[in-house]
Amino acid sequence: MKQRVTISLDAMGGDYGAGIVVPAAVSALHRFDDIELILVGDEKVIAAQLARARERAGGRLRVHHASETVAMDEPPAQTLRLKKDSSMRVAINLVQSGVAQACVSAGNTGALMATARFVLKTLAGIDRPAIITGIPSLKGHTHVLDLGANVNCKAQHLFQFAVMGSVLASAVDELENPRVGLLNVGQEAIKGNDQVKEADRLLKHSLLNYVGYVEGDAIYCGDVDVVVCDGFVGNISLKASEGVAKMASQLVRKEFGRNLITRLSGLAAIPVLRAFGNRIDPRRYNGASLVGLQGIVIKSHGGADAFSFEHAIQIARIEARKSVPQRIDKQLERLLT
Amino acid sequence: MKQRVTISLDAMGGDYGAGIVVPAAVSALHRFDDIELILVGDEKVIAAQLARARERAGGRLRVHHASETVAMDEPPAQTLRLKKDSSMRVAINLVQSGVAQACVSAGNTGALMATARFVLKTLAGIDRPAIITGIPSLKGHTHVLDLGANVNCKAQHLFQFAVMGSVLASAVDELENPRVGLLNVGQEAIKGNDQVKEADRLLKHSLLNYVGYVEGDAIYCGDVDVVVCDGFVGNISLKASEGVAKMASQLVRKEFGRNLITRLSGLAAIPVLRAFGNRIDPRRYNGASLVGLQGIVIKSHGGADAFSFEHAIQIARIEARKSVPQRIDKQLERLLT
Repeated sequence: MKQRVTISLDAMGGDYGAGIVVPAAVSALHRFDDIELILVGDEKVIAAQLARARERAGGRLRVHHASETVAMDEPPAQTLRLKKDSSMRVAINLVQSGVAQACVSAGNTGALMATARFVLKTLAGIDRPAIITGIPSLKGHTHVLDLGANVNCKAQHLFQFAVMGSVLASAVDELENPRVGLLNVGQEAIKGNDQVKEADRLLKHSLLNYVGYVEGDAIYCGDVDVVVCDGFVGNISLKASEGVAKMASQLVRKEFGRNLITRLSGLAAIPVLRAFGNRIDPRRYNGASLVGLQGIVIKSHGGADAFSFEHAIQIARIEARKSVPQRIDKQLERLLT
Repeated sequence: MKQRVTISLDAMGGDYGAGIVVPAAVSALHRFDDIELILVGDEKVIAAQLARARERAGGRLRVHHASETVAMDEPPAQTLRLKKDSSMRVAINLVQSGVAQACVSAGNTGALMATARFVLKTLAGIDRPAIITGIPSLKGHTHVLDLGANVNCKAQHLFQFAVMGSVLASAVDELENPRVGLLNVGQEAIKGNDQVKEADRLLKHSLLNYVGYVEGDAIYCGDVDVVVCDGFVGNISLKASEGVAKMASQLVRKEFGRNLITRLSGLAAIPVLRAFGNRIDPRRYNGASLVGLQGIVIKSHGGADAFSFEHAIQIARIEARKSVPQRIDKQLERLLT
C-alpha cells in the first residue's frame, strides 16, 4: 500500500466556504485512495454540507471543529491577533503539529500568508515566502513566482525565489535541472530596473540552470521551466493574461453569434473550441503554493468552484508526496552561496 | 480643403528599413489626401524602393537625404553622440524645425527616446516622456502608459503619466473626461508597492477623473480609458498578453488540425476566426506615442510590415491634426497642481 498523506482543508474559506470545499473533498477522496482529508471549520455547517453530499465523516474523512472564520477582506494583522480559532489558522496548525502534511485554503491571501508564516515559519535562508503556480504554456506549464506576496523586492529576494522555484519545479515535474529565467523588459543587458540587474548578477554566479533575462511572453512559450519576478509584476501580468483570454473567448463567441451561417459554423466548431477551452481552463490550474515555509500551504482561488478546489487538493497531495519543503531546505545550503 | 499635416518618416529604421517604410508611405498617401510625407534616409536606397513601387517623389511625397542609420542594438548614448546625420535624428529634426508636425520611426526604442528627448525637449512640468499606446479591449481600446521608457518610477512620474494619458485619450478619442485607473495588485487600499500608494494619494487629490486602483485585466475590460503603470510592469504585462494570444491561436490551430472532422469544422469556422483575428490583430494597433515631448514622435514596432507601419503613420496623422502636444501643454498647468 502506498503511504497515505493527510491534508487539512480550510472548509470556511473563499467566497463559498463549505458549499464547495465539502463536495471537492468528497470527490478527491473517491479519486485518490492515498489521501486522508480533515475538514476544518464550523462542524454544524460541515455536517449539513456532508448530508447534502450524502456522505458522513469516518475512514479517510475527518472533521475538526474551528469556531471562527476569516473574512475575505480582513486585514492580515487583525486575523493574526484576534482569530486564533479560525478554520484557516487551525488548518495550518494541523500542518505545524504534523497531523497533516499539507493544507489548502481558499481564504484571503494576505491573511493566509501572514498566518502561515507566523505558524510554520520560513525555511532557514529564506526571508520571504512567495506564491508560485504552474501556468499553462505551449509545451506544458511554466512555474511563475512571485505572484503577489511581495510587492517590494530586493535582488536577494528575487534570487531566493529562483532557488525555491527551481527546487519546486524539479520535485514536482521531476526535472533534473530546471531552466530558470528572470523576467525583464528586454533581453539586452542594458535594460531592466536596479533590482533585476543585481539579481541577474547573483543568478549568473549561482549553481542554478539560469538562462538569463526573459520577456513577458516567455511564460507561455515553454522555453523555460521557472520564471522569476517580484509579486507586483507577477500578479499584474497574470491578471492581464487572464483578461486577454477572457476577451478572446467573448469576442469569438460574439463572432460566431453574428448570423445564421456563423452560428452553424460555430456548432461545427464546438468540440474543437471545447477541447481548446479545456487546455487553457484556469480551473485546471487552480492551486498556488506558498513556498519557502516549513510546511505545505496551498492557496485556492477565492471564487473557485468544487472542480477547481479539488485541483488545489491534488497539488497539495503531489507536494506532500514529494516532500517539497524538505527538498527545498536540503538544497538551500548548496544553492544559497 | 482640409489643412494638410506633414509627417517625416525614418525610412531606414526597423528590421526592414525602406523596404517596408516606402510602400507604407505610398499606400498612406493614397488613403489620406490630407497628409504630406517626407522619407528621410539614404536617397539611393529610397529611390530604389520608390522605383519598385512604381512611384516617384513629388507632390505630397518628398525625400530628405540622411547619410547614417541607427542600428537596432546601438546604445542610445552612442547614437546621440555619433549619429548626428542619422535618418532617425533628421526625421526628428524636421519636427523640431516645424517642417513636419510629426515623425514615425521603427528604429531602436532607446535611441529614439533619447534622440527625441534631446532634440524636442520635454514639456514644462514633465520629467520623463512615456510610451503610450491604445490596446484593444472588449469595448474599443484602452490607452496604457508607460510601456517601457521608464523602468524605475517615482510616484510623481506615475502622476505625470496619468495627466498625459488623460489629455491624449481626450484628444484622440474625443472624450470629455477620460476615466483613469492606476494598475495595482488589488483594489484594496492596503495592497500595492510604495510608489503606487503615493501616486494613488496624488491622483485622488487631482482634477483627473481618477477611478482608483485597477487590476491587470482592466486593460482588456474597457471600463477605464487610461491605465497608468511604470514601464517595467507595462512592458512585461503587454508582452505576457501577446504571449497568451499567440499561445491561444496556436492551440486553436492545433485542435482544428487534429483529424478530418475537426479540419472540416475548421474550414467552416475560417470566416469567423478571421473576423476575430482582425479584431485583435496587433498590426491594427501598431504605433506607440512618445508622449510628454514638445512634438509628436510615433514608434512603430521594429518588425512591423508595411500594413502595420501605415497604421503608425495614421496615428501620427491623428495626433498632428489634434495637436496633442499643445493640448497636453495647455492642460498641464491646470492639472499639475
